[in-house]
Amino acid sequence: MTTDNTVTGDTATGDTVTEEAVASLRSTADPRLRELLTGLIRHLHAFARETRLTQAEWERAIGFLTATGQTCTDTRQEFVLLSDVLGLSMLVETINADTVAGATESTVLGPFHMTESPARELGASIDLVGDGEPCVVSGRVLSRDGTPLPGALLDVWQADGHGFYDVQQPGIQPAGNGRGLFTADEEGRFRFRTCVPSPYPIPTDGPVGALLGATGRHPYRPAHIHFIASAEGHAPVTTHIFVAGSDHLDSDAVFAVKESLVQDFTETDDPSLAREFGVPNPFRHARFDLVLTPDRS
Amino acid sequence: MTTDNTVTGDTATGDTVTEEAVASLRSTADPRLRELLTGLIRHLHAFARETRLTQAEWERAIGFLTATGQTCTDTRQEFVLLSDVLGLSMLVETINADTVAGATESTVLGPFHMTESPARELGASIDLVGDGEPCVVSGRVLSRDGTPLPGALLDVWQADGHGFYDVQQPGIQPAGNGRGLFTADEEGRFRFRTCVPSPYPIPTDGPVGALLGATGRHPYRPAHIHFIASAEGHAPVTTHIFVAGSDHLDSDAVFAVKESLVQDFTETDDPSLAREFGVPNPFRHARFDLVLTPDRS
Repeated sequence: MTTDNTVTGDTATGDTVTEEAVASLRSTADPRLRELLTGLIRHLHAFARETRLTQAEWERAIGFLTATGQTCTDTRQEFVLLSDVLGLSMLVETINADTVAGATESTVLGPFHMTESPARELGASIDLVGDGEPCVVSGRVLSRDGTPLPGALLDVWQADGHGFYDVQQPGIQPAGNGRGLFTADEEGRFRFRTCVPSPYPIPTDGPVGALLGATGRHPYRPAHIHFIASAEGHAPVTTHIFVAGSDHLDSDAVFAVKESLVQDFTETDDPSLAREFGVPNPFRHARFDLVLTPDRS
Repeated sequence: MTTDNTVTGDTATGDTVTEEAVASLRSTADPRLRELLTGLIRHLHAFARETRLTQAEWERAIGFLTATGQTCTDTRQEFVLLSDVLGLSMLVETINADTVAGATESTVLGPFHMTESPARELGASIDLVGDGEPCVVSGRVLSRDGTPLPGALLDVWQADGHGFYDVQQPGIQPAGNGRGLFTADEEGRFRFRTCVPSPYPIPTDGPVGALLGATGRHPYRPAHIHFIASAEGHAPVTTHIFVAGSDHLDSDAVFAVKESLVQDFTETDDPSLAREFGVPNPFRHARFDLVLTPDRS
């Protein structure tokens, strides 16, 4: 028996597949989706070409992404964590923040803003357990020209004194612990009681933890409190306040620290202020203003 | 009450986070892992910057990747499918194939090479159901200089006549249907019986199907049979044979077609050959040689 055809070729350079993949998007109805996928294909292919990605490495990446998806639950978002530790979340936040000079800088939302914060009165405590170091957080929400913004909303959330958010410990922490939604008073002022946050590790028992381990990185975030501040006629800001002097301020696992966001939690010995705030004297006190940018009109 | 600190800044350009993320890899023990992650971070960040990726788009991407991971099971690999429809699988295959002129070209492994193919005698049928159009596949495995390669292994798998692999239909198709592991004879020859494959859609009921829908792409692959050919002292090749004249040869959903891999499945009227192969006359016959590259030594 003779054989007709021999399955050989000289053209396997891989130069054409990128153009074929981009061309396959020609019938995409949404032009923005086409733009995003075109950019994605070009960068993904350029990455594979430049690094000469091997089959074994590709297989490991497929396995990693699969495990990352399968680690996600209603209360855990491992892909957000992956985006965080690669600096992508912080980059996207910064690209879109469009911060003008004099307004409060933004930082990442993080994966723990999962539940609606319970509305609380000004001065109330968000520490429902009370086993941390008590402190007071106060200040004003202002427009860029210094005008106070009465009725501004402040959505606040933080880990407890042991470094866990309520959603990480259902049944251990009461729901809503470390969270509060506050409305600024007629002079734009806010204040609430809490415990001084402490640094904590992002979850390390999943694929992202393994990645940090393989890259010799620690998983810690410096101590911080999350805020989303919003007011009518202004662009809202998603940000943190970091505790001055905290460990890991120079090596936040998610790259979220900006110098302007680091605040003193000052040891305060002031019996009358302590009485006013309803805390034992002395106490620690973080005082800062949040400054919002008026909408363009 | 006066306020000490106002949380503002002028430096939120996003220029630094990429360098911070790359620098965080400095303690990575494996230099190749560091190289890969550095390339990944640079391309991912460049993609976000160039497209000015919005928070809403980032959230949609997180949701898409999560759903993709959660669609994966022991018998379904949605991330491989995603890599396939973005052209990445084909690119990685081609980068690594290093095909020299005169050797059989490679193409993608695909997501259905999941089980060990059952060893079968030369001439046996891999169509355990027998409701397709019967055909014979035969040829030789050769070294690049034309020397036959006795004992070469041929791992073969294909969808049935309805376009499904056995692993997609447990309980409907017998396990091992459409699969066979053949050993070439003392002259490097192989032959087996099967049914003529038909085009089929990749699975469209998951996130990748939704992506194809949003980009106006059809999900079909042209008719093909998968092969992995290997022989001592030679680089193995992972490839397909495509059926000449099949629909979708010019628009394979996974970009895997190479012209050299398209083969005639010739209508053959040859009673003695039919008898030799154990098929009714006339029959369809695909004949081709697979050519392997000797290892460099």
